[in-house]
Order: sequence, then C-alpha cells, then structure tokens
Amino acid sequence: MDNLEKMRHTLSHVLAAAVLALYPDAKFGIGPAVDNGFYYDIDFGDTKLSDTDLAKIEKKMRGIISRKLPMTKRLSTKSEALDWARDHQQKYKIELIEELPEDAEISFYDMGDLFTDLCKGPHLKDLGQIGAFKLIRIAGAYWRGDEKREMLTRIYGVAFNTEDELAAYVKQQEEAKARDHRKLGKELDLFCFSDLVGAGLPLFTPRGTELRELMANYSLSLRGREGFKKVWTPHITKTDLYKTSGHYAKFGDELFMVHSQVSGEDFAMKPMNCPHHAQIFASRPRTYRDMPVRYMEATTDYRDEKTGELGGLSRVRSLTQDDSHVFCMTTQIKDEVKRLVGIVKELYGTVGMQKLRARLSYRSDEDKYLGDKKLWAMAQDQIKQAAIDNDLDYFEQEGEAAFYGPKIDFMAEDAIGREHQLATIQLDFVQPERFGLEFTNSEGKKERPVMIHHATLGSIERFLSVFIEHTGGWFPFWCAPEQVRIVTVNDKVGKYVAEITKILDDVILEKPLKHNELRYTVDDSADSLGKKIKRATEMKIPAVMVVGPKDAEEKIVSIRLRDGEEKIKLNKLTAYLKKLS
Amino acid sequence: MDNLEKMRHTLSHVLAAAVLALYPDAKFGIGPAVDNGFYYDIDFGDTKLSDTDLAKIEKKMRGIISRKLPMTKRLSTKSEALDWARDHQQKYKIELIEELPEDAEISFYDMGDLFTDLCKGPHLKDLGQIGAFKLIRIAGAYWRGDEKREMLTRIYGVAFNTEDELAAYVKQQEEAKARDHRKLGKELDLFCFSDLVGAGLPLFTPRGTELRELMANYSLSLRGREGFKKVWTPHITKTDLYKTSGHYAKFGDELFMVHSQVSGEDFAMKPMNCPHHAQIFASRPRTYRDMPVRYMEATTDYRDEKTGELGGLSRVRSLTQDDSHVFCMTTQIKDEVKRLVGIVKELYGTVGMQKLRARLSYRSDEDKYLGDKKLWAMAQDQIKQAAIDNDLDYFEQEGEAAFYGPKIDFMAEDAIGREHQLATIQLDFVQPERFGLEFTNSEGKKERPVMIHHATLGSIERFLSVFIEHTGGWFPFWCAPEQVRIVTVNDKVGKYVAEITKILDDVILEKPLKHNELRYTVDDSADSLGKKIKRATEMKIPAVMVVGPKDAEEKIVSIRLRDGEEKIKLNKLTAYLKKLS
Repeated sequence: MDNLEKMRHTLSHVLAAAVLALYPDAKFGIGPAVDNGFYYDIDFGDTKLSDTDLAKIEKKMRGIISRKLPMTKRLSTKSEALDWARDHQQKYKIELIEELPEDAEISFYDMGDLFTDLCKGPHLKDLGQIGAFKLIRIAGAYWRGDEKREMLTRIYGVAFNTEDELAAYVKQQEEAKARDHRKLGKELDLFCFSDLVGAGLPLFTPRGTELRELMANYSLSLRGREGFKKVWTPHITKTDLYKTSGHYAKFGDELFMVHSQVSGEDFAMKPMNCPHHAQIFASRPRTYRDMPVRYMEATTDYRDEKTGELGGLSRVRSLTQDDSHVFCMTTQIKDEVKRLVGIVKELYGTVGMQKLRARLSYRSDEDKYLGDKKLWAMAQDQIKQAAIDNDLDYFEQEGEAAFYGPKIDFMAEDAIGREHQLATIQLDFVQPERFGLEFTNSEGKKERPVMIHHATLGSIERFLSVFIEHTGGWFPFWCAPEQVRIVTVNDKVGKYVAEITKILDDVILEKPLKHNELRYTVDDSADSLGKKIKRATEMKIPAVMVVGPKDAEEKIVSIRLRDGEEKIKLNKLTAYLKKLS
Repeated sequence: MDNLEKMRHTLSHVLAAAVLALYPDAKFGIGPAVDNGFYYDIDFGDTKLSDTDLAKIEKKMRGIISRKLPMTKRLSTKSEALDWARDHQQKYKIELIEELPEDAEISFYDMGDLFTDLCKGPHLKDLGQIGAFKLIRIAGAYWRGDEKREMLTRIYGVAFNTEDELAAYVKQQEEAKARDHRKLGKELDLFCFSDLVGAGLPLFTPRGTELRELMANYSLSLRGREGFKKVWTPHITKTDLYKTSGHYAKFGDELFMVHSQVSGEDFAMKPMNCPHHAQIFASRPRTYRDMPVRYMEATTDYRDEKTGELGGLSRVRSLTQDDSHVFCMTTQIKDEVKRLVGIVKELYGTVGMQKLRARLSYRSDEDKYLGDKKLWAMAQDQIKQAAIDNDLDYFEQEGEAAFYGPKIDFMAEDAIGREHQLATIQLDFVQPERFGLEFTNSEGKKERPVMIHHATLGSIERFLSVFIEHTGGWFPFWCAPEQVRIVTVNDKVGKYVAEITKILDDVILEKPLKHNELRYTVDDSADSLGKKIKRATEMKIPAVMVVGPKDAEEKIVSIRLRDGEEKIKLNKLTAYLKKLS
C-alpha cells in the first residue's frame, strides 16, 4: 500500500473519531480507502445528516489532525476483540469479529488515546503526515451491500498529498459535473430511458442514433480498410455454445437466461461474440491461403449488471461492442496486432484523445493460464514488438493476462485529465482448442489458429459516455448529429436559403468517415433571430449559418463556429465545409 | 368450397380407397385438401413405403377414377358411426367420432360401393369430374400433430383442373428446388447454422452480411429521403412495456422470456418494436409543428417459433425488421400512407418484383375492433385514396383488419410466379391510447396521434429467402456481395491488374443505393484459367474480368456478364461499371 492510500485509510479513522465525538451513539460499519479518498459507513440511528453536519464533522477532523496523534497497531485475541466491541456497543464490529476464526490474531489501531478501531491497517505513523482532504458527499449504503440489511450513511471524503492536488481534483470534479453525459444526453436529446423498458436499457433518439452509428461506422471502416469483413450473429444462443467454449462454467450465473415457453428450450443472451464468430469460421474448411480470417460486427451484447451499478451510458445492460476476431497462424500474430494498434492510435487521435497508455498483460508462473508456455512466450514477444513498432507509451504487467492469452489494454486520457480504459486487444489460445478450429497448413496438415479479440471503442455506449464528457457535447464537426443549422434573419430570404440548401444537398464529406452527406436543418421559424441563435447554441451545433438579406445580396454565408465567425462566398462554401473537422 | 378444392378433397378419398385395396390393414387418420393438392395420414403398421409403392398406389387410383363412381353423402347417428368404425377396425376414426357430441349428425361419403369414409364433405358428384393429379411425396406426421402420439405416414398429392396446369406446377416446383435458398445459401457462402447456437438462429457470413446490409440500407435510405430518422432500441424490455401496450395479454405466452439471475427481474425479448418507439416519442413534449414524427430502425426481433416450423431463412427465431413508425395527426394519414406505398413500389421495382397486389383490410361490424368508428371510416377512406393515387393493383376485404386499425398488405410475385406477402402498412389507434401519447395541437390543446407501422422488406431474413430464390442467386450487380472478380490468364499481368484495381478502388456507385464503393476481388492464383472462371461462375459473380497479356497491351478489359462478354477500354471502365445494375 502506498503512502497516499495509507493516508486515505487513516483519514477514515479520523472521520470516525470525529463522528464519535459529535454523535456518541454512532455505530460504525467499515471505512476503507478508495480511489481519490475514503469513506466510512455509519449508523446514525434516526438522525439524518445535512451538509451543515458534514462541515461540522470536517471541522472536528481538522481539530483532531492538528494534535498529530500517533497511530499504533495492537494485536488481540478474538475474545478480547469481542469484549471491546461489546463494551463499545458496536454491533457491526461484533458481527465482523464473530465471523473470524477462533484463533485469529486480530489487530486494532489506536489513535493516541482518542479513538480505537478494529483494522488490518496499514496506517500513517501519525496524523501529522496527513496532507489535504475534504468531505464531499453523503450517500446511503446497505450494510454489507445487502438490501435486506440496515441502511447506513456513507460519508465520502477526498484526500491528496497537497492542497494544490486537492484543488485540481475538486476542479476536475466540477468540470466533470458540468459535462455529465446524463445531463447532456437529455439536453442534446441523444438518448432516454423508460421505466417501462427498464434500468440500464437506453433508447437512442434520432440524434443519439446518428452519433452512435457514425462512431461505429468510423471504427469499423478503419478495420474494413485492413481486410476485416462484417458478419452478423443473433443475440441469443443455446447454452451449449457457452458450455463448449468454457464460458458457462466461468460466467454461467452472470448470463441473462432466455426461456422458450413454446419448446421449453433454454437459451442465453450473448454477453460476447467470440463463440458465435468461431462458429462462422468453423462453417467451412479453411487453408493457410485463407488466413488470417478477419470478422467484425457491431452488435449488442447483454450483461446482467446489478441495478445499483447502472448509470447513464457508463454501465448498461445492453452494450454494443465494435467487436472483431482475427483467426490467424501463430506466425501472423505480430502483424495482426500491429494492424490493430495502428487502428487504435488512429481512432483515438481522430476523437482528440491522443494521449494513450497501453498495458501489456503477460502470464505469471501460476497454474491458472491455459495453453502452451512456448506459445505464450512467443506471443508476448510479438505483442511487445508490435507496441514498440507502433511507438506506444506502454508498460508491462506480469500476472495480468487473461487465462486464455496475453493482452493489451489501452487507457485514453480525456479533456479534463481522466483516464478511461476503452480499447483492448486480446490473444486467445483456448477457444480455438475448445471449438476444434483448424486450417490446413502449407504442408497439408491440420493446424490450430490463434484468435485475436479486439474492440476499438470497446462498448459504444460506454465510449459515448466518455466522448460526450470529453467534448462537453461540442462534438467535432464530422460526427455532430446536426452539423449545420441555417438560421434566417427574416422571412425575405427564402429564395437565398433554397440556393444554399441546394449546395448543401450535394456536399459529401470524406473525412474521417467516407461518403457522408451533410446533416443540416433550417430554422426559418417566426421567432426572433436572438432566440433562434440561442436555440442553436444550446444544441451545440458546430456551424450556424445566419442568413439575412445582405448575405443574399452579396452571395455570402456567415458561418458561426464555436470559436468565431467567418464569411464565406457561396461558390467557396462546399470547399469550406469539406475542410471543417 | 370451390370445385378445385372439392376435387382435391375427393382425391384424398380415392387415395384412401387405393391404399385400402393394396394394404387391407391400413388405418386412416385424416385426409384434407390443401394448397395445390391433398394428403392423407395413414398408419401402415410396420410397413415402410417406397417410391415404387407410391407409383403402385397412384396406378390403383387411376384405375378407380376410370370407373367414374358416384360420391354419395349419407347421415348417421354417433352410435351407428361408431359401429362402422369398430367393424372396420379404424381406431383413429373411433377416436374422432368419440369426441363428437352424443346427438351429433355424422356424415359419411360412399364412393359407389367401393369405399366409405367419415367426412363432412363436400365432394365432387362423381370421380369422372376429376382433372389431373400426381402423388409426389411421403412424409412422417404425428397423429393430431402431437409428438407423443403415433407417427403416421402422410402421402401428398398435387391436383389441378388440367394436365397443363399440373405440368406447370410441377415445373415451378422443380425450378423452386433448384433455387432453394437453403442450398444456394450454402453454395454461395451466405449464411450458416450451428447446432451449438440452435435452430432458427442463422449466422451470416461476410457475403451474406454484405447482402443483408445492402438490402436494409437501401430500404432505410428510401425512407430516409422521406424524412424518417433512425433510432436505436434494446432487444429486451421489462414485461411492463407489453403489459401497458396490451401485447402481453394477447401474446404473452409467445414471448421469449428473459430472466435476470442477478436481480431476479423478468424481461422479455422484443417481438416487435412499436412500444419501444412509442417510448422515444413520449420522451419529450411534442407539438403539431413536430408532426409527423417518423422513426425507423433495422433491428432484430425474437419470436418463439416451433422448432418444426423453422426452415432456412423463411421462418427464423431471430428476425430483423426494417421497421418504422410514423406518429401523425389524423389529417396526415393519407399523405403518410401514400409516401409509404410509393416506397414499396420503388423497392420492389428495383429488386425486379414489379408485380404487386395490395390487400386493403378493413373492419367489419364485429365488436373486436378498438377505436372510434368514425376514425376507422376516415382512415379507411384515406388508405383507399392513397392506393388509388399510387395506381396500386388492390382489392378490399372487410373483417381482415387488425383489431387496432386498418392495413395494407402487399403480395409480390417472384420470377417463377409465386406470391409472397412481404411489405405491410398498418394503422394503429390503440397503442397511442394505451401509452397516453399526445401532442399539442395548433389550438394549444392536447391531442392523440395515430401510429402507422410499416416494414418495406418485412423481415430481412424472410425477404432474403424470397430474393435468393427469385434471383436464383444471380443477384443484381448493385447488391451482389462480390460484384467484380478479376481473373488472370497468367502471371505476367500483375502490373496491368494493379492499374485496373487502382481504377476500381475509386469507383463509387450511386444507384439505387448511394455512395457505395465497388466490391471486387482478384483471383491471380496459379490455377488454370478454366478453373478460375468456373469458380467465379459457381459463385455467380455478375462481372468477371479476364485479364491477359493482350488486354494489357491494348489497354482493354474483357468483362463477362451473365448474358455475354464485352470489351471495354480502360478509360471507359468507370463509366461502364457505374451503368451496370
């Protein structure tokens, strides 16, 4: 555990000490360190905490910290621990201790003589080492995550080494809030939810559908250029498919099960597409001349996520993957991976998330990895070489590979500095074996192919949640659902607007996605110009053309972009629009 | 019952009489007239029938027919009927009679004094009126369609008024067999099935995916031109959606039910998309200015068909609809329907199935129809006017409407004269009511929209089953998965092939679907020219370019189309390809 994590953990004890001082009847659950801070789950009985209370608690915490009390570890037996918990009437701690084995060595941490908590540690040496922190939020949390148990109050804090870091984080959080994709999704009319349809099952409106299709098409077009062919597979399958692939044994209880009332058969909704694609590969004999065989499909998978974990598009039950599978010879791994790494770099460059880090995950010496060790070593070498050849900012981690093969995960940084794991490239030595996939090699012998799983966007829904927040809803020109809006100054310009739209109808954009007709609308309503411009700005339309009688006379078009206005001659309009990005 | 149907029914009796003469122990099930002919289900005990037996039975039938025996109806009581069945040891007839009410008046038909059968009739007066017939096939059939009961032998015959009609039908059947889309699907590598995935769940290979996407995109592009916008909805929903829409009460036991093991919630797979689209309409306030709102989506629905009824792509469990829904004011019905009828005519014209008949289905005076009678009358008028304005070959049927509104169904004739019901336009007064959909009209009051359901292809899978057989796999140039194959005469033409492909890479086809890159491959393998051409022909590639040294020298390209060969100058190649269709 690094120092920052220790500090965050220590702060959760300080939080508890402050609460106990202010609310002597409080009963404590657990208080771990988490990303960026810490929390403690506390039972306040009938007392409801307000923001004022939070400020009071924070003030108390600062008082305690200023005393620079030492944190001291102390070991005890189970019965001593139980005595302590009973003396302090801490029923949740009693429950936790009771579950430990009789001979367990149980550790406590004393904060000077002020406060003691049951805890594994580790902690800072003393409170003097604590940096910058802030309590930020109260939420409800069921004891042990079980909705049949008590509802506790969770107090969240954030903590960093310095005040500057804390301020930067708080600012990032504020920015993130303003960019929240759930808020923007509603404001920009991109997607909606329906109580009748259910949580985690977004419905995409015309604008959102335009955006998701453009993204998926762009992503697949990059692979299309590299020889990938689209396939189509159904969303359900007999469970036999996953029994054969081995997924059923591992993830069987996470599947959405489908029941046929007519035939009594049991199906499952597909949570991934590899076994389906393997069936297409297996549908005819293949030779070395056919290899690599490259399939891709933007298709929706279903994963049975907990309702509590669903939020906007970040985590959904219906996730559409821009998925692909390469079936190749072992000697082709490096070239194929290189091809995919190139695609990842190109796509994230296009969407303005150039800063990519790649984690190369290798096997360790543990037994859990399947497949020949020599094959693993060779494949890991090829992956690394592909990373080097592509000039990737990479780091290596042993023991992080999937059981079926090594992989590369990509972390992309967004406009406010948050990292998101999106694209992935995974080798698979196991599924070809389980499905008995084979091709005839140049010597006429049967050989096993290697599979390479890859999704560039990952899940389109999750990608969009990141992309909407990354852009704050100001989508780049090429992928804005509505790229251009013509706004009329008055009702005298109808003829000139017709002249402009005749030009716009013929504009075909070629970058980064080929052969796209321009998406524009005309607002010639009787509303005031101000109101019309305000509406266009609220919808974050990248190019607003304000058309008045003077423009008509001069045969020009005034185009308002986000960063300024330009006047373009009508005969240069097509060329101008083709250059926007 | 018309005369042809009577004749077919009488022939099933003749079949039974012939069987009884040849197999005195045969036990008879039922023997109805069906489309194009008749069958009889018969229990032959342990005897297995061969094709030779079939010929023998047919000969016997002709002998019986030549006697021109009269068919005479005779009434009896239930107990007399039972006596007859017991005397003749006809256990299936006993079972049928026993289920009739005690006071039933039961009819028998005597064929002269040769053969008697329990039968409601009607029949021809005598066997002299029988036209042309032929026994064609033996199949197994469970008694009463129940797989737990006896397996009987079903003998199928076809029958028509004249020998010419019979010959034409038999020829059509042979042509249909040669065009069988299941056979062509395999030969042309369009789709496959996997036992692990399950029956009725086709997987589309790259070629088949290309074809289905082109068709779907073309279909949606026609609506896109008319103001329809794509939306996206998930494949599952809480059953609440169908409870509200009313579908659950009607079709609840035909749904694929989906169970969440994590949350215990119950979902259903969507068998149609209208309720989902209604949710998107309902997601924001609408005014008369927004109307009509037009959504479209090519999305896969799931229907729990019986395994025995699944076959190739004709009937599948995963059916992808090119679906759309218009939400409009009652005054807009005619215009919207006209728009859709125009699209149907255009699409079926493009795919070479110009011969369309339309059935306009109206309500009758029965009580089963929901919605205001005046609204129905007005809507039926508007539908009819739209049919007339579009010059449709239509007929009207009262009592054939859906309970929720009147509709138009289109029957398209294929290349061998078979009619297929594919496109449909359905009005719906009920769902807007059940979901409480509304818009603000020009007087500021809330008003209910009407919904119009429409699919042009219907189900893409079923359309493809028809289209593959309609074309016999010789797809029109624009939608062939592989449009052009370059075949080299020897290994000296690599440079010239590169020159040609450089041109092909830039060919963008604009008709009937816009902005399509040319789909071509190069076969420069070491195989003989004959073998390479044979391969291309087997795959039914519409344009095969044979490239030899002489072509290179003269800068020409020899293009073999299905109906002949043409020599095109290299600088005219692009223009030539753009004109192919």
